[in-house]
Amino acid sequence: MINRISSMKLAERVREGHVRAIARLITRVESGDPEVRQAMAELYKSTGRAHVVGITGVPGAGKSTLVTQLVLEYRASGRTVGVVAIDPSSPFSGGAILGDRIRMGELVSDPGVFIRSMATRGTLGGLARPALDAVDLLDAGGFDVVLIETVGVGQDEVDIVRAAHTTVVVNAPGLGDDIQAIKAGVLEIADIHVVSKADRPDSNKTIQELKAMLMMSLEPGEGVWRVPVVPTSSEKHTGFGELMAAIDLHAEHLEQSGEITERRRQIALTRVVKVAEEIVRDNFARDSRSQTEELLKKVTQRQLDPHGAAVTLLKAMKETIHESH
Amino acid sequence: MINRISSMKLAERVREGHVRAIARLITRVESGDPEVRQAMAELYKSTGRAHVVGITGVPGAGKSTLVTQLVLEYRASGRTVGVVAIDPSSPFSGGAILGDRIRMGELVSDPGVFIRSMATRGTLGGLARPALDAVDLLDAGGFDVVLIETVGVGQDEVDIVRAAHTTVVVNAPGLGDDIQAIKAGVLEIADIHVVSKADRPDSNKTIQELKAMLMMSLEPGEGVWRVPVVPTSSEKHTGFGELMAAIDLHAEHLEQSGEITERRRQIALTRVVKVAEEIVRDNFARDSRSQTEELLKKVTQRQLDPHGAAVTLLKAMKETIHESH
Repeated sequence: MINRISSMKLAERVREGHVRAIARLITRVESGDPEVRQAMAELYKSTGRAHVVGITGVPGAGKSTLVTQLVLEYRASGRTVGVVAIDPSSPFSGGAILGDRIRMGELVSDPGVFIRSMATRGTLGGLARPALDAVDLLDAGGFDVVLIETVGVGQDEVDIVRAAHTTVVVNAPGLGDDIQAIKAGVLEIADIHVVSKADRPDSNKTIQELKAMLMMSLEPGEGVWRVPVVPTSSEKHTGFGELMAAIDLHAEHLEQSGEITERRRQIALTRVVKVAEEIVRDNFARDSRSQTEELLKKVTQRQLDPHGAAVTLLKAMKETIHESH
Repeated sequence: MINRISSMKLAERVREGHVRAIARLITRVESGDPEVRQAMAELYKSTGRAHVVGITGVPGAGKSTLVTQLVLEYRASGRTVGVVAIDPSSPFSGGAILGDRIRMGELVSDPGVFIRSMATRGTLGGLARPALDAVDLLDAGGFDVVLIETVGVGQDEVDIVRAAHTTVVVNAPGLGDDIQAIKAGVLEIADIHVVSKADRPDSNKTIQELKAMLMMSLEPGEGVWRVPVVPTSSEKHTGFGELMAAIDLHAEHLEQSGEITERRRQIALTRVVKVAEEIVRDNFARDSRSQTEELLKKVTQRQLDPHGAAVTLLKAMKETIHESH
């Protein structure tokens, strides 16, 4: 592309708070543009100010509605908010079926709000790396709070919320028999539980079940974070102020207890591992015409097991990891 | 442990079809026992006979009930079936809350059926590697069909079903507004769609919506697989024979079209990448007292970005990858 603005130049603009530069760099990050790497490394130095909140829960739990309401609360409290929403990819539509996103429309004209919906990638690649790069961009761009919303629950999604300071798990009453956080295996990662649709009569049962579960896991001692259960209702517009207060309280707890140090280490570890995984995947794919194909053939023919092939490829990889990667 | 039977010896017994040996090796695989590695490499040579079916869908879609019914169909057709069910981990319970598993109880006394429920690992590690090792064990142990059921939908779960010959996506009517396969981003990975709970009046809407979606994505041409939509009802005991027939038809299609070659390559690639990712994670964790901690500290202090740290660690890793890993 002729006269394309460099990612380095865009990074400068991000630091000055230009949201359009943020949007453009997210696009480059998503497309796997190699030129963006150095700019992201540079921008990383300007991160670490924003409070990052991961919001997760099973499909249908009401996460997008909750995010919209939470953003409004933050705005009312005078803070700016960036949102990274990770949407399912679909070969049929880039977004037309994503009705949830449309409900966020009321927020798009507010310059103190930036919402970016990212596609999950259909290929054998994680969604964590580009999503967390987007969080960095919003952080470096000066947003006070960054919300990451993940649709669905799985390992990669769990890893994404592991890269947040505060994790909110959203449960809706009556979705299946059991508490969804249990079914989805994310009960233990919650710093805060939300029971959405709390106007519904069956919400009390969900709230009580969650509280009972949390009681069982309660560690004794002073200064331990007690995971709260916050009921919210978008019908009645209740609970979102309480949710924001709970997030603020958790942020305060992290600082005062000193837990923030271990949390930051955990976030760094998650990010480094996710990047390393992506480098490995890319490396394997890049050699696809030669050694990789040879090894894959051996694996399909049962002459070599997957572990043996992985070790061989990792050993060969060392020569091909470039700084530019 | 004194007089512990070696994994190599257990592998021999697996090949002779001893299910208890399969169970023991799965346990060793799950615990990350390094001694099991060589045995799995050896056993891998005896795999490749079973037809592997991935079954996925959002929590509450009715996957476990469907698996139970499908197993009964396979048994009635004279085939043996292994099941690997990937359950959420919970700090509270190893399985007491997993009511779904109990419903499978009627099958446990049948020697032609082996069901193993595997915990997702709570740590920064994938669940794909141990789950796919379990599939190998069942394959090598002589089971005709191996079903992998994944709870929840996410990248790692998608990767698991990518390691199957046939992928079945289960949709329940009325779980949220949209078709769950779309919300969860797995519409495109389905070889077969199931609409469960088809006795419910709203199931027709889900079936029609799915069919309309599939029509839109239809590629023209002869010999292209047409993704069927199979309604099932465990209430009325209908549809499970049709589902088995659809899976058999898909297996036949893979062979006749020659697509099986590419599918096998894809499975091998997924497996190799998953193992490589695990090796990288383990390697990073192993060095945790020295270089890794140093780099993580730099990352938290914004002196180094996650990408730079990952490249440094991957380069350092080359010396520490042992065959024994």
